[in-house]
Amino acid sequence: MSLIDVRLSELGIVIPELVAPVAAYVPAIVHGDLVFTAGQLPMVSGALPATGKVGDGHGLIPAADAKEYARLSALNALAAVKSVIGSLDRITSIVKVTGFVASHPDFTGQPGVINGASEVLAAIFGDIGAHARSAVGVAVLPLDAPVEVEIIVAFK
Amino acid sequence: MSLIDVRLSELGIVIPELVAPVAAYVPAIVHGDLVFTAGQLPMVSGALPATGKVGDGHGLIPAADAKEYARLSALNALAAVKSVIGSLDRITSIVKVTGFVASHPDFTGQPGVINGASEVLAAIFGDIGAHARSAVGVAVLPLDAPVEVEIIVAFK
Amino acid sequence: MSLIDVRLSELGIVIPELVAPVAAYVPAIVHGDLVFTAGQLPMVSGALPATGKVGDGHGLIPAADAKEYARLSALNALAAVKSVIGSLDRITSIVKVTGFVASHPDFTGQPGVINGASEVLAAIFGDIGAHARSAVGVAVLPLDAPVEVEIIVAFK
Repeated sequence: MSLIDVRLSELGIVIPELVAPVAAYVPAIVHGDLVFTAGQLPMVSGALPATGKVGDGHGLIPAADAKEYARLSALNALAAVKSVIGSLDRITSIVKVTGFVASHPDFTGQPGVINGASEVLAAIFGDIGAHARSAVGVAVLPLDAPVEVEIIVAFK
Repeated sequence: MSLIDVRLSELGIVIPELVAPVAAYVPAIVHGDLVFTAGQLPMVSGALPATGKVGDGHGLIPAADAKEYARLSALNALAAVKSVIGSLDRITSIVKVTGFVASHPDFTGQPGVINGASEVLAAIFGDIGAHARSAVGVAVLPLDAPVEVEIIVAFK
Repeated sequence: MSLIDVRLSELGIVIPELVAPVAAYVPAIVHGDLVFTAGQLPMVSGALPATGKVGDGHGLIPAADAKEYARLSALNALAAVKSVIGSLDRITSIVKVTGFVASHPDFTGQPGVINGASEVLAAIFGDIGAHARSAVGVAVLPLDAPVEVEIIVAFK
């Protein structure tokens, strides 16, 4: 087992199967020593576990649930990275995470939601998992997904 | 004629004149072997062909129209790239496309809209046109544009 | 004094103290000769000078005020850059600025708002301050901030 595989096993994390793009693009692309992923939705076995806007109140997705969906999106992003570089052990740095949260206009907890992505990356990669990040609240996301996460990683 | 010029001619595509930035920035910048474009609106001869939010219903821009505006935005992005590297034949890879769709909160078809950009890039560049991509639905865009597209390309 | 320090002094600009990330990430990261910053809010001494959506009308933040907040966000981004490369004199190019404006759906003046960031970068860095840029209007931002700005810079 590779070092990252051992770590994933300790954490009880299984990197999911690659999610096929929902449109005319590829899941990730290599340029030089960087991998740029496509925006990843929290797909589980090909379906969204929830749809709608994040916020407080009837009919909205609670922030705690959305944080878990951000975590799933980040794992799907790692699956996309793995699909182009073969092994996550080749990652030398998580450079950038951008997280979009489909938000009710009154919901301002986007940082806590996207922590679902940031924290799982830190847990898996330790020091090299530290990344720059933007989190924003958008009107709506593809397929009515609650979150979308894209990442840029460096590898060797 | 260059290879890309031949392909554009076959496709009946004319790369538009460079669109002047609407504010205090430049259309594109070179760093190393990458070009980063500014976000491009679907300007045609200096004006937006339509304004408003994309969605289903009275007063909204239909998705099919918005897809065409995404295509126009991508062509404007290529004009921006051309302005800094001289020829589109120098492009070795379309690395990343980010597409913002000014969306009614009920409209979730952003991927189909941004396919207007992805498909024209695939048509022009073939295998090297495959790119990572994010599509998100935002509240509103500059000048009330329905879509905005930015790209990162590699060149030699 | 360094050249940039002289320029900042002439402009009466003080680069603020580094703003601690509001969540599980780092303010900026170096990869190769690039620095990617996290999305920066217009924090002043640890607090937002205003919260809400930008637009025209009662209860909204006027565009002129938001432009100043974009300027503050850009200065916070420079503080983040400085924290990882030591001196702003090492910057060789402002490559990319992405500006998110928390917008009332009727407000379409995002370019003018994000000019607050672009113009201060141009004032400080002159020719090497010219950058590609995207400005979008989002539903809501972290902590109900009116603007968020992230930048990519090259350095030597």
